[in-house]
Amino acid sequence: MTHPTDPVPFTSSYIKSREIPLGPTAIGGEGFLVVAGPCAIESYDQFSQTANAVAQAGAGALRGGIFKMRTKPEAFQGLGFDAFDIVRRVARETGLPMISEVTDPRQIQDMGDVLDAFQVGARNMHNFELLKELGRQPKPVLLKRGLSAYLDEWLAAAEYITREGNPGVIFCERGIRSFERATRNTLDLSAVPYLKERSHLPVLVDPSHGTGVRNLIAPMSLAAAAAGADGLLIEVHPEPAKAASDGHQALDFAMFQSTMTGLRRILSAVDRPLRTHRAGRA
Amino acid sequence: MTHPTDPVPFTSSYIKSREIPLGPTAIGGEGFLVVAGPCAIESYDQFSQTANAVAQAGAGALRGGIFKMRTKPEAFQGLGFDAFDIVRRVARETGLPMISEVTDPRQIQDMGDVLDAFQVGARNMHNFELLKELGRQPKPVLLKRGLSAYLDEWLAAAEYITREGNPGVIFCERGIRSFERATRNTLDLSAVPYLKERSHLPVLVDPSHGTGVRNLIAPMSLAAAAAGADGLLIEVHPEPAKAASDGHQALDFAMFQSTMTGLRRILSAVDRPLRTHRAGRA
Amino acid sequence: MTHPTDPVPFTSSYIKSREIPLGPTAIGGEGFLVVAGPCAIESYDQFSQTANAVAQAGAGALRGGIFKMRTKPEAFQGLGFDAFDIVRRVARETGLPMISEVTDPRQIQDMGDVLDAFQVGARNMHNFELLKELGRQPKPVLLKRGLSAYLDEWLAAAEYITREGNPGVIFCERGIRSFERATRNTLDLSAVPYLKERSHLPVLVDPSHGTGVRNLIAPMSLAAAAAGADGLLIEVHPEPAKAASDGHQALDFAMFQSTMTGLRRILSAVDRPLRTHRAGRA
Amino acid sequence: MTHPTDPVPFTSSYIKSREIPLGPTAIGGEGFLVVAGPCAIESYDQFSQTANAVAQAGAGALRGGIFKMRTKPEAFQGLGFDAFDIVRRVARETGLPMISEVTDPRQIQDMGDVLDAFQVGARNMHNFELLKELGRQPKPVLLKRGLSAYLDEWLAAAEYITREGNPGVIFCERGIRSFERATRNTLDLSAVPYLKERSHLPVLVDPSHGTGVRNLIAPMSLAAAAAGADGLLIEVHPEPAKAASDGHQALDFAMFQSTMTGLRRILSAVDRPLRTHRAGRA
Repeated sequence: MTHPTDPVPFTSSYIKSREIPLGPTAIGGEGFLVVAGPCAIESYDQFSQTANAVAQAGAGALRGGIFKMRTKPEAFQGLGFDAFDIVRRVARETGLPMISEVTDPRQIQDMGDVLDAFQVGARNMHNFELLKELGRQPKPVLLKRGLSAYLDEWLAAAEYITREGNPGVIFCERGIRSFERATRNTLDLSAVPYLKERSHLPVLVDPSHGTGVRNLIAPMSLAAAAAGADGLLIEVHPEPAKAASDGHQALDFAMFQSTMTGLRRILSAVDRPLRTHRAGRA
Repeated sequence: MTHPTDPVPFTSSYIKSREIPLGPTAIGGEGFLVVAGPCAIESYDQFSQTANAVAQAGAGALRGGIFKMRTKPEAFQGLGFDAFDIVRRVARETGLPMISEVTDPRQIQDMGDVLDAFQVGARNMHNFELLKELGRQPKPVLLKRGLSAYLDEWLAAAEYITREGNPGVIFCERGIRSFERATRNTLDLSAVPYLKERSHLPVLVDPSHGTGVRNLIAPMSLAAAAAGADGLLIEVHPEPAKAASDGHQALDFAMFQSTMTGLRRILSAVDRPLRTHRAGRA
Repeated sequence: MTHPTDPVPFTSSYIKSREIPLGPTAIGGEGFLVVAGPCAIESYDQFSQTANAVAQAGAGALRGGIFKMRTKPEAFQGLGFDAFDIVRRVARETGLPMISEVTDPRQIQDMGDVLDAFQVGARNMHNFELLKELGRQPKPVLLKRGLSAYLDEWLAAAEYITREGNPGVIFCERGIRSFERATRNTLDLSAVPYLKERSHLPVLVDPSHGTGVRNLIAPMSLAAAAAGADGLLIEVHPEPAKAASDGHQALDFAMFQSTMTGLRRILSAVDRPLRTHRAGRA
Repeated sequence: MTHPTDPVPFTSSYIKSREIPLGPTAIGGEGFLVVAGPCAIESYDQFSQTANAVAQAGAGALRGGIFKMRTKPEAFQGLGFDAFDIVRRVARETGLPMISEVTDPRQIQDMGDVLDAFQVGARNMHNFELLKELGRQPKPVLLKRGLSAYLDEWLAAAEYITREGNPGVIFCERGIRSFERATRNTLDLSAVPYLKERSHLPVLVDPSHGTGVRNLIAPMSLAAAAAGADGLLIEVHPEPAKAASDGHQALDFAMFQSTMTGLRRILSAVDRPLRTHRAGRA
């Protein structure tokens, strides 16, 4: 598409990645996918409300922690198996695919029943045994960057999955550890074009963990889209102040809507359709 | 401005900063300014060609090193005073304002004759004697972030200038030192919204130093605009492979034009006019 | 013990930790233990030669990779089960206890047959499922610091083990990721006194991974002892240039001997006996 | 010197650097020099008391801030010229040489009257104009490592001084910025042997800034000596809790004495004499 004001032929700012099917929708290719939901699933009401709100605002997939990895063993570790029925009900209601983190090879079979894709957290990017097991099953794997993983180590970690036979790996930049103390992590958006030049796999960005600061999520979401990312992973909670974990980096419904409004404009500027619920279903 | 497709009222993604006059144009406010030019001024031909090319493609100000700070004392240190006449001629020809780095309080008076704004490099962000001197003269100061400066230290460094009476400080994010070795620095775009919430001063982004990798400059330029930056500082060289310094991070004229095309679309999406030469002159 | 030249009563420079039994010897308490051996066990000859050389020079325990975690899936991954017989033979010959890395909860039972302690590598410090399983078996666990783990996260990771019932955790500082590119990692020796003030668990230091540079291993070994560490983990190989992995950070036998000579003098200065083979057996 | 218990010939753990004269004493060569004093000179009483206490405990030179570089312009900036008389009196009383930080080329001449060596702070390591000026005068320059300077950049910065004709440069490792938040900086002791292999210049260590935590200063002082450093720079204050700046990282007199006791033992183990006041005077 050429805009009337373009003085020279427009070279698209993003490199098109391979499209990876995700339930009724997909990640990569031309479309842009927003995955949204709470850090942790706390109850049916909390997850259902959030899922419906984000679907209406334009999210195309759901996220929500079932088994949470927490630094301290006494912190809230997720509902675990008790969340399975909640996930099934909400996925049915909304029609949206579900992504959640797996932390142990022994959870893969059970979680596979309720998930459309597995997430590997930053702390497990180097857990090669887990990666190899995920390579031996068919569902896509969203592979977060390790807290201080070199970009080339991240590319190599993806190979642990693909070499076992599963081509469906999606990278997710979630911020790296730097000296800066004002933000929880330093979101490295240059990872997006760097990876896309070296791999055909899609790249998402998680501005929630990537900054750890609520007010930085909207601008960094727009920036990620402009940098060529294939989607976002955003934490949304009905009442962030009451969240069982990481509420300081969750958006409420109004902030999420407003972020999506800004995002739609950027996506239109870079000629990428948003993979909304209905688009995904078509 | 409301787009017909906006489902909810659009909250602008950027926080408007104070407008700081820069020769015939300005930095901050509504407009977006692209400052472009070579890492170092090498000759009249090189600088004139570059200045004309970037002006035509939409740059609104020129940059170019006169006195270069180099890690090794034997490296090319810039033309020094020999560059003054070149700068005068090219500024007259193009009508664009000129920004260059000052490294010593004793250079301020002389350089003030040919510059519209002073740049303080990353390695001098903590050179408080230099900052205080720049606070005692009237031209704007582009203050780059130190290699590993906390955002709050950077805000404090700006105060060294403003407390002496010069309100014209412009921040410039240029990447921080992180563990990552694939890029020269890690461009921290979250600095843009962070600073704008805490200060009324404009914020530019330098994707050339910020990544050190030519192919990452265009996507990070677009991302910076989407994150709410007030402008960019981009290195452009007629023949990057022959540049006297930092050629690997300079764009040639065609890449600069293509970057500007993508940038115009993002700026239109965030409702910001580009401060081009003519706009500046109006 | 008071030296005749001490002008004021000498407050020992180290904080005494709990003593954790390790086969015929122990880690922590008053004694200082050097654990040495190759990065990976490559053959009976290689491991036996190394074990005998380090035992003679003063090492009190053996290390050697059986299942190696490697960034790239095509790199040498260790001998695996084929190493078990080698380990048994060499342990019997030398009488030294054996430590090796475990990377999967499903390896624990088999490896427990040939090991006196399990090592958790830096890339698995946050693999909480693995830590919990190791907490449910009786052998000591040497817990390396994650590549960019906060000291307080490392303390919390140890709790994942101890809360399951296994009190035998030993910390091992192995360098953190920093911006510096001259060394593989930045060895953070301040971790030693920091942890010892906050925990009664012993702290070892790994100068091989901690620097990645052969010539830095001896001075950093002495420094670790002076900082109050309870022992060292050092890579030694008969012919470092031919090692299957990480040869650039392995000592040959002569360098190991010379390191031990310097170390003995520092240990004598801080009043700590070296837990050698015979001492261990007593 | 051979200890009776050395099983193999002892290769000294440190590389001998060139000896640089410092008033009545020297830095480098065989001797080990402890430079001690307050972060900032606050009054005659404070500086005199501290100087006498550290001299008695074994320090061989004094430090004390006159013009302080402070991140925030409203913080205490040192006594400035008012400190000159204090410095003169205390130097005369104790006979110890004095080192203090210079932050502006225009201070060099005046400060040269009262100082035996100039210190360049971490924030000015890249202030090449200042380095060049210091290269054109005869007194030694203690060059601190930049907050995130590569070791090779630091070596290059020293050349800015030596190329102008002053061979008297002394490196001082003072900790680098890392992700760790428990300490103010991460003291990189591997810098000591790294630099000494590549340069004949002496290397000091500053465990006060290097950790920012009082209880870590003694163990890191001993570690620095064991790693082969040529001396230490330690902050001491009569009443750290009342210090005008950085009291949390200053030792009181008793802690300094106890650190010196431990240090003497390590120095004896590595065969290095302490350059005390009397030794210096001899």
